[in-house]
Amino acid sequence: MIPPRTLRIESGETTRTIYVIGTELRVQLNRCAPSQCKFFSIKCNPTVQFRVEAGASAASVAMATPAGGSFLSPQLLTKNTVVFISMKLASELVNDSKLSVRFYGNKSELLGNAVLHLTAVEISLDIDADRDGIVERNNPNKASWKWGPNGHGAILLVNCDCESTFRKELDSEDEEITRVSDLKDMSKMILRTRGPAVLPEGYKLSLHISRSHAESVRVFRTSGKPQGSTLKYLLFKLFQKDYPLVLNKEQLAGEVPYVGGDSQQELFVEGIRFPDKDFDGLITINLSLLEPSGQGFPETPIYTDKVMFRVAPWIMTPNTLKPVEVFVCSTSDNYDFLKAIKSLVQSSGYKLKICHEYMNRGDRWMQDEIEFGYIDSPHQRIPVVLDSPRDRELEDFPYDVLLGPDFGYVTRYPVNERVSSLDSFGNLEVSPPVTVNGKKYPLGRIIIGVAFPTTAHGRNMTKVIQDFLWAQKVQEPIALYSDWLVVGHVDEFMTFVPAPDRKGFRLLLASPDAGYKLFRSLQVKGHGSAKLFQGKEEEISVDELMSNEEFRAENVYVQNCIDWNRDILKKELGLDDEDIIDLPILFKVFSEEDNRAAAYYPDMVNMLVLGKNLGIPKPFGPQVRGTCALEAEMRSLLEPLGLNCTFIDDFASYHKLLGEVHCGSNVRREPFEFRWWNLE
Amino acid sequence: MIPPRTLRIESGETTRTIYVIGTELRVQLNRCAPSQCKFFSIKCNPTVQFRVEAGASAASVAMATPAGGSFLSPQLLTKNTVVFISMKLASELVNDSKLSVRFYGNKSELLGNAVLHLTAVEISLDIDADRDGIVERNNPNKASWKWGPNGHGAILLVNCDCESTFRKELDSEDEEITRVSDLKDMSKMILRTRGPAVLPEGYKLSLHISRSHAESVRVFRTSGKPQGSTLKYLLFKLFQKDYPLVLNKEQLAGEVPYVGGDSQQELFVEGIRFPDKDFDGLITINLSLLEPSGQGFPETPIYTDKVMFRVAPWIMTPNTLKPVEVFVCSTSDNYDFLKAIKSLVQSSGYKLKICHEYMNRGDRWMQDEIEFGYIDSPHQRIPVVLDSPRDRELEDFPYDVLLGPDFGYVTRYPVNERVSSLDSFGNLEVSPPVTVNGKKYPLGRIIIGVAFPTTAHGRNMTKVIQDFLWAQKVQEPIALYSDWLVVGHVDEFMTFVPAPDRKGFRLLLASPDAGYKLFRSLQVKGHGSAKLFQGKEEEISVDELMSNEEFRAENVYVQNCIDWNRDILKKELGLDDEDIIDLPILFKVFSEEDNRAAAYYPDMVNMLVLGKNLGIPKPFGPQVRGTCALEAEMRSLLEPLGLNCTFIDDFASYHKLLGEVHCGSNVRREPFEFRWWNLE
Repeated sequence: MIPPRTLRIESGETTRTIYVIGTELRVQLNRCAPSQCKFFSIKCNPTVQFRVEAGASAASVAMATPAGGSFLSPQLLTKNTVVFISMKLASELVNDSKLSVRFYGNKSELLGNAVLHLTAVEISLDIDADRDGIVERNNPNKASWKWGPNGHGAILLVNCDCESTFRKELDSEDEEITRVSDLKDMSKMILRTRGPAVLPEGYKLSLHISRSHAESVRVFRTSGKPQGSTLKYLLFKLFQKDYPLVLNKEQLAGEVPYVGGDSQQELFVEGIRFPDKDFDGLITINLSLLEPSGQGFPETPIYTDKVMFRVAPWIMTPNTLKPVEVFVCSTSDNYDFLKAIKSLVQSSGYKLKICHEYMNRGDRWMQDEIEFGYIDSPHQRIPVVLDSPRDRELEDFPYDVLLGPDFGYVTRYPVNERVSSLDSFGNLEVSPPVTVNGKKYPLGRIIIGVAFPTTAHGRNMTKVIQDFLWAQKVQEPIALYSDWLVVGHVDEFMTFVPAPDRKGFRLLLASPDAGYKLFRSLQVKGHGSAKLFQGKEEEISVDELMSNEEFRAENVYVQNCIDWNRDILKKELGLDDEDIIDLPILFKVFSEEDNRAAAYYPDMVNMLVLGKNLGIPKPFGPQVRGTCALEAEMRSLLEPLGLNCTFIDDFASYHKLLGEVHCGSNVRREPFEFRWWNLE
Repeated sequence: MIPPRTLRIESGETTRTIYVIGTELRVQLNRCAPSQCKFFSIKCNPTVQFRVEAGASAASVAMATPAGGSFLSPQLLTKNTVVFISMKLASELVNDSKLSVRFYGNKSELLGNAVLHLTAVEISLDIDADRDGIVERNNPNKASWKWGPNGHGAILLVNCDCESTFRKELDSEDEEITRVSDLKDMSKMILRTRGPAVLPEGYKLSLHISRSHAESVRVFRTSGKPQGSTLKYLLFKLFQKDYPLVLNKEQLAGEVPYVGGDSQQELFVEGIRFPDKDFDGLITINLSLLEPSGQGFPETPIYTDKVMFRVAPWIMTPNTLKPVEVFVCSTSDNYDFLKAIKSLVQSSGYKLKICHEYMNRGDRWMQDEIEFGYIDSPHQRIPVVLDSPRDRELEDFPYDVLLGPDFGYVTRYPVNERVSSLDSFGNLEVSPPVTVNGKKYPLGRIIIGVAFPTTAHGRNMTKVIQDFLWAQKVQEPIALYSDWLVVGHVDEFMTFVPAPDRKGFRLLLASPDAGYKLFRSLQVKGHGSAKLFQGKEEEISVDELMSNEEFRAENVYVQNCIDWNRDILKKELGLDDEDIIDLPILFKVFSEEDNRAAAYYPDMVNMLVLGKNLGIPKPFGPQVRGTCALEAEMRSLLEPLGLNCTFIDDFASYHKLLGEVHCGSNVRREPFEFRWWNLE
């Protein structure tokens, strides 16, 4: 309920004002009464309703208003006598309604008469507060925002794609609307008004926002097409914009025209900033009716309507979602790898997008430069690529190639921070949906790798990226320990694959223990002389490898590092041991790299997950009766889940450069069916 | 419940680790078992407890551990067999407890033996989470923060006073503790440990904080006094600090010594930053036990304890609180004013502090340069002055004079914003405690003045100050419209006075309508010729004044502006008309000042409130039978509330300079009895 507006009328004078349907006007009678006044009476049109209160203490006199108007016979005037005035219907003419108060010294002696002329209007700023893609009429919850299926509140997208195909610029950086197609990335707002053909002179409608919100939003209106001749229309098209800017960060308040009668004006709201450390994503837009206060005085807002939006978060897509396109680089030396990927992707029925050398300039780490995600609203949903601050030779790819119509782009620039290898997005993953001690994460949880918080030195993901990820809220991140690795990416020791049972997925972890267990059993079974890396210069027998004590110690250390992460993942994702599969993978520690580790043979956990089809780095493990013991072990671990293992030779072109299949590829996936605003 | 820690043991090897009381160690048996192992058995000291689980599916075997140790006879080893190990008491010697697992091919054939040596320690980082001023032992809620009388969570003060009397510097800007007296402004933290005389080699205790929290906090420890000779002690005093710094923004992790046996180490936490737009006031401090991972590898945190603090907000004090000291400036031309104030303050029994000319340099607006408030915690409470960015000639007063031992100081510097008259703190007030539609504000609500949000131009309070005020949370601010005034301060049209009834106070509002009503009744009663400003050059009769139509129009406009604020105040403070008193005050609009207004005669609402005694600007109203009609009206409005009106002549020295008594004074008041952390 809107509190009544205090209005002044005066004995011997005529006051004119606009009344907004749904509000109440409040007149303190003894203020405007002549000083020696004792009694008063009230008379008004049938279109006007009033009630009189003689102070909180005294009982209030409420009046019905029968057609033919209403009259209140003389009453005693008290210090706190107040008249409350309201109307039910919008006026057709300016000042077509009237209320007058007569003041008496005693019931007969008339001292004066105060007259009030009223113009009633209906005003409502409307949005899609019920999230069905349609702007409803005056939703009672439009001014607030609530999460959940029973929640409410409109949604705004950051207009981070680029409608223009020739001129590359984020639409959100353009202060005007140059293409009608751009409107679908904005949230519609409708200004509904009903009243006389024009407002009384000096009255205005004004949209306004606060300074802090203005950094995150822009509002455009539709310029009403002029009536009359074609010439007039052509001139208009020539000299006036179809969608004039009303609000932006320079212009916190802007007038919107009042269109007479029963009208609906379309407005378009454009998000220009993602939620971040200093922005919770909520934006309020106000519409005020301004009353003139006379020459040279600022107009007074006499009625304000509010609506609230939340800017949609950037959402990541886990391995369990259906792939759409697979991205991989073509380099001078990866022909066979490319061929293998191509056949896997095409046989799986997905699109393959190859980034050619002129664009990747030899940078093959497609996983590391970008992360695919999307933004979603009831009216529009588009993929959005997050561009890593890594910025090696693939730097231009996301902006120059991916950004386009209905394909968004977002990035963050480090402020006085050194970018490290941990800022590559092989170090940014997301889990499938999980439930942890009853708390639901229907969009999964983001996973990043950092240094131990207890070590003063050590590499980290830059603060700007971490702040951005945390601020999206809907996939609450988990920080793992990945600084123990030379490259330092979480995808070097973990991944997720779909599973038909349990939680719908398995967490795969690299495990030196599992590796040693496998190799020891090979020795016991008399295959100690079997060779890893057969035919390569690195060729070595199982017995030789198992007898290397230093190597053994290194892998004990690595297992401890992975176990530390294992405990965190179990806790933060609510996993049991049965949800985790340990893959037999051995690591090597490089003293010249500050004792950091890397996979000894191709890191099989660093795989490409395409539905049930897995593209796994070919490990070149010990050959036992013509088959690779490591491949055999992988099959025996994963095939029972209905997964198909394809082993891809990335030895020379990736593994030797400290990366594998996953590092060298990237997958755009379908969005979740679950809509983010339904989060509890 | 802390999730168990994964631990590796190995057949044929002896593993040593520290066990922290209250946790559980988790050993995956088949990982460390020889590959052909079928059965296993377990043996341990009486000090150790264990239980065995054979996968989530299989039933778990739990073992009691009778004195004399415990033995689990050979069991079948499954893929998921896990042993959970715990202990009840801290060890007295390193590795004084032992558990061993034997592995069999079949029940007779022994394949190997894995031995685990355990050292049990008790570790707890403790704070005053129950807010009674005493650090309790291991409060279960210490890691989180909850508002309300049934809430929990420790409290931190910004160390914004200055212990040193000769060297002026905020203690929070000093990276070390130079005075023991400074400790009482900090929150005590106690590190309780129990265990052997020393930790096994390579183990360490480390305190650490996140990068974002590090900007807001510092941690010191007490350096253990050395045992033995006085000489030793003296050398120590010479070369070592009593309170070494452990954590600050440069040092996110720092070692704290482990003191053997049953020990309690005192730590001191210093707040250095008030809540603000980018800081919610919550700070987490972590203590981790680090395990060595061998030469050149970073230590692994194997146990982490957390505590949470909230930085105390800055709190303002309304007129209804008991005064302590009154501040006023002495200038070359305000002798009589000063005398009047002095007698009022002293007869009321409060301290008067005069700021002399060498310090105020002619700037008499004591209200505008500073706002008095305080910060509060269970262990310490001090007054804190907020220094306005106004910075006129009084600029140095708050820092040079007020800041001192147990008197804090805080300010904010505008970032590329112009400071305006609205940044003076005559434009910053606070209401008494109110309840609004059931919502309690036991500390009242802050009130500031700004321009209409609907006007693109217009003056505002700088964003940095507004952000600071909103971020304090406990006195949720209300923004009024004050830009219609030349000076633009809310104290030009409103104040609060104590009252014995209703809500315990009245809101006083300047009211041109009330003024006109009074003067018109004077005319009716035949006093139209009575003079305002008698004997002054401004002298004018009531009739002359009332006949000035332009003046009348200006006051109608002013009344509209005040009524707009009246409606806001009624809504935001939950007031009825009976809670508001309209004071007869007329305004004048100055066209050369962009049509902004100022009080026509001394602005009686701009008063000094000292309990029941009010220092009111002497209005120089029309003399009726030797008494001033305005003074008489004020008495008749306020004396029924038990208030005493003293009218103070500020005409020449303040009113003519567009200020009054309130603008020219300031009051430090006693804090609320209500403690802010009890807010719901």
